Amino acid sequence: MATKKILLSENDIPTSWYNIVADMVNKPLPPLHPGTKQPLKPQDLEPIFAKELINQELSQERWIEIPDEVRELYKIWRPTPLVRASSLEKALDTPAHIYFKNEGLSPVGSHKLNSALPQAYYNKKQGIKSLTTETGAGQWGTALAFACSVFGLNLDVFMVKVSYNQKPYRRIMMQTWGAGVVSSPSDTTEAGRKILARDPENSGSLGIAISEAIEKAIKSDNTRYTLGSVLNHVILHQTIIGLEAEKQMEMAGEYPEIVIGCFGGGSNFSGISFPFLRHRLTSGKAIRIIASEPRSCPKLTRGRFEYDFGDTVGLTPLLPMYTLGHDFQPADIHAGGLRYHGAGPLVSQLRKDGYVEVQDIPQLESFEAGELFARTEGTIPAPESTHAIASAIREAKKAKEEGKSKVILFNLSGHGLIDMSAYDRFLSGKMTNYQLSDEEIARSLNCLEKLVP
Amino acid sequence: MATKKILLSENDIPTSWYNIVADMVNKPLPPLHPGTKQPLKPQDLEPIFAKELINQELSQERWIEIPDEVRELYKIWRPTPLVRASSLEKALDTPAHIYFKNEGLSPVGSHKLNSALPQAYYNKKQGIKSLTTETGAGQWGTALAFACSVFGLNLDVFMVKVSYNQKPYRRIMMQTWGAGVVSSPSDTTEAGRKILARDPENSGSLGIAISEAIEKAIKSDNTRYTLGSVLNHVILHQTIIGLEAEKQMEMAGEYPEIVIGCFGGGSNFSGISFPFLRHRLTSGKAIRIIASEPRSCPKLTRGRFEYDFGDTVGLTPLLPMYTLGHDFQPADIHAGGLRYHGAGPLVSQLRKDGYVEVQDIPQLESFEAGELFARTEGTIPAPESTHAIASAIREAKKAKEEGKSKVILFNLSGHGLIDMSAYDRFLSGKMTNYQLSDEEIARSLNCLEKLVP
Repeated sequence: MATKKILLSENDIPTSWYNIVADMVNKPLPPLHPGTKQPLKPQDLEPIFAKELINQELSQERWIEIPDEVRELYKIWRPTPLVRASSLEKALDTPAHIYFKNEGLSPVGSHKLNSALPQAYYNKKQGIKSLTTETGAGQWGTALAFACSVFGLNLDVFMVKVSYNQKPYRRIMMQTWGAGVVSSPSDTTEAGRKILARDPENSGSLGIAISEAIEKAIKSDNTRYTLGSVLNHVILHQTIIGLEAEKQMEMAGEYPEIVIGCFGGGSNFSGISFPFLRHRLTSGKAIRIIASEPRSCPKLTRGRFEYDFGDTVGLTPLLPMYTLGHDFQPADIHAGGLRYHGAGPLVSQLRKDGYVEVQDIPQLESFEAGELFARTEGTIPAPESTHAIASAIREAKKAKEEGKSKVILFNLSGHGLIDMSAYDRFLSGKMTNYQLSDEEIARSLNCLEKLVP
Repeated sequence: MATKKILLSENDIPTSWYNIVADMVNKPLPPLHPGTKQPLKPQDLEPIFAKELINQELSQERWIEIPDEVRELYKIWRPTPLVRASSLEKALDTPAHIYFKNEGLSPVGSHKLNSALPQAYYNKKQGIKSLTTETGAGQWGTALAFACSVFGLNLDVFMVKVSYNQKPYRRIMMQTWGAGVVSSPSDTTEAGRKILARDPENSGSLGIAISEAIEKAIKSDNTRYTLGSVLNHVILHQTIIGLEAEKQMEMAGEYPEIVIGCFGGGSNFSGISFPFLRHRLTSGKAIRIIASEPRSCPKLTRGRFEYDFGDTVGLTPLLPMYTLGHDFQPADIHAGGLRYHGAGPLVSQLRKDGYVEVQDIPQLESFEAGELFARTEGTIPAPESTHAIASAIREAKKAKEEGKSKVILFNLSGHGLIDMSAYDRFLSGKMTNYQLSDEEIARSLNCLEKLVP
């Protein structure tokens, strides 16, 4: 009988993460201090992040060792299986071979735990007592809540209001693991109060929640902030996905010509793709890397490559990103984890240099892909992950038209069991595609003018 | 580093299920025809079940081969890992070694898929076009919905009203996989209309939903009924859990002196324990088997061993069971999958013969166990599974008091991500224990008088 899942043993868990900076032709531009507009010094970040994470953020080393304590905790669910989507292939009647890495098997239901555990670990090691963070769909918040429970750290999560209201289950999950959860924008921070004064009905955004979480960390004792995507050290931790997949594809005797991840800030996309992109950077291997973003939040498709703030209020360093502008207020789409205005600096530079393709997926196409995947492969995918599936299906259909066998690999970043209300809207015909006009985008890009002279 | 998960490869998926009837000292009493009160003939069941499932129901063969097509589908998520609960052990400071089998990793989130797939397979093979079933918490319904999606069968699910209202996510899951879902009691069947006429606010029970699903199957063309627990063939399919665990415990170099499963109708309990109980039956191996049932639905603790109906209205054969009486209306506890009035005939006979111990667990104790498990091992357990965890914790604490190392194995029948509203009640202090008086039990047992002379 054919093998369905390519499995690794716990001993195969990689011992190092891969830092793509070492192999990039053009290194990413440095982050700038928001006040002086000069390149940031490591000590500027120390009130915000644990020192070891700052080192990783700025490192140019190719391989960074995974601490034993973290590898030990990875064993709770890692290595994750690489799965041949044979039933999906059959339904599509495609000659393409479709593989996916199932990151939805983590106890929190997504890939986010890959970075939550090391971030909690390095903070604990430094003697930090409390962490703060923001969460959109709730995937990152739940992951960090479990990680903090493991290491005995306090945690305050600022949860984007629209998700807080639409997804009470993720709030309860965080509370079950012992975290405190606040709906953002909130009146517990100056940043939140400023937004609410201007717009009491504001439904929140990742940008606003980041502002609140950073402010809280800076103003509290022995407290640091953590981020679940965008930054280099988060991307670094997520490369464990692609490093495992690399071994597994080898075991399957195949090589992925196309690697796909859904795209919010870049963490799961970079995690699955960077270890493969390395082959192209270091030995010219032909491989296509596709970022699948929602058409309603098209930072890579229609954004501008500029220095911009990571948050809405302007507390973070200025980062070189493809961005829709930090004022961009995304539509209330169900893929809450993809509602972010900017792309991480590493992906942005690689996109600029022509290494990353982009597909912008309408909401209905993404859920159609999710439904087909559920009915064939079993797992109901997270709304975010349905974007990657939609791209994989597009490529598999193209392979059929061209009569070519192709090997496609995508990342199933998480399952959608907490997002069933979104499927309810889809199945009952109440879901729509959001149209975003050029004027709206131009308006939100305005805030970038003269940010950096 | 110590091994956390004991993993098997896809080739290790057992090729046969284990039928404990072959090794039982006292064979189970035969099911009786509800009209004649005479032992049932196979053909009596043919309007209700697929023929091959009837053969399995009545079989005395020790090993029954798993069809290749079913083994192929098991590969979607099987073999499931056997996990050493090392963090839970540490939190309890116990010398006991605690292992659990993680059945929550199936795409539907529970062990129920182990039987849903073969049931759909045998029906499809016989040329059946549509299935009906009932579901309590929704675990069985979701599993059968996916199985029917795989085999292209129609499915109508009668979902116990209290779960239908409390757990919309499971309804949407079933719909995502293409099933039709009706709140039970409903006005679509005579059985449902009868209940509603007597009590329009009736919150439903598994017994009532079974009546409706059987009636619908009998009255529809080319349609059969399926059941997710209680019956011998369901128990048979679930033994794949224990058969895998048997190999895995061997690989761990340990032998479980205590095997624990939560108890509703018996499917996950029998699945994990029967392959081990076999060692006691065939070679006198010392091993304790513990069924953990909710104190509010204590059929094994306070029920009577009698012939009773499997449903409320009286459409099923009469089964020899420990039962609280088919009129028993369980409290609206959150472990919806354990709200059933009777225990399956195999477990009942083995309980009567002294092979099965029982622990009745109060609701608050079960959720305390669930919370501790989530904070240590990561996975938030299904409310049903928390009963098994509570028993494992009791035994681990006893081991500590006695200063003895013991090996404990329990089944994590499913994750609780769809049951977060129950955790919300627990965490906010709104959950209570239900008291069940002797009078209430005596009253519900009344319906058994003179059922079988």
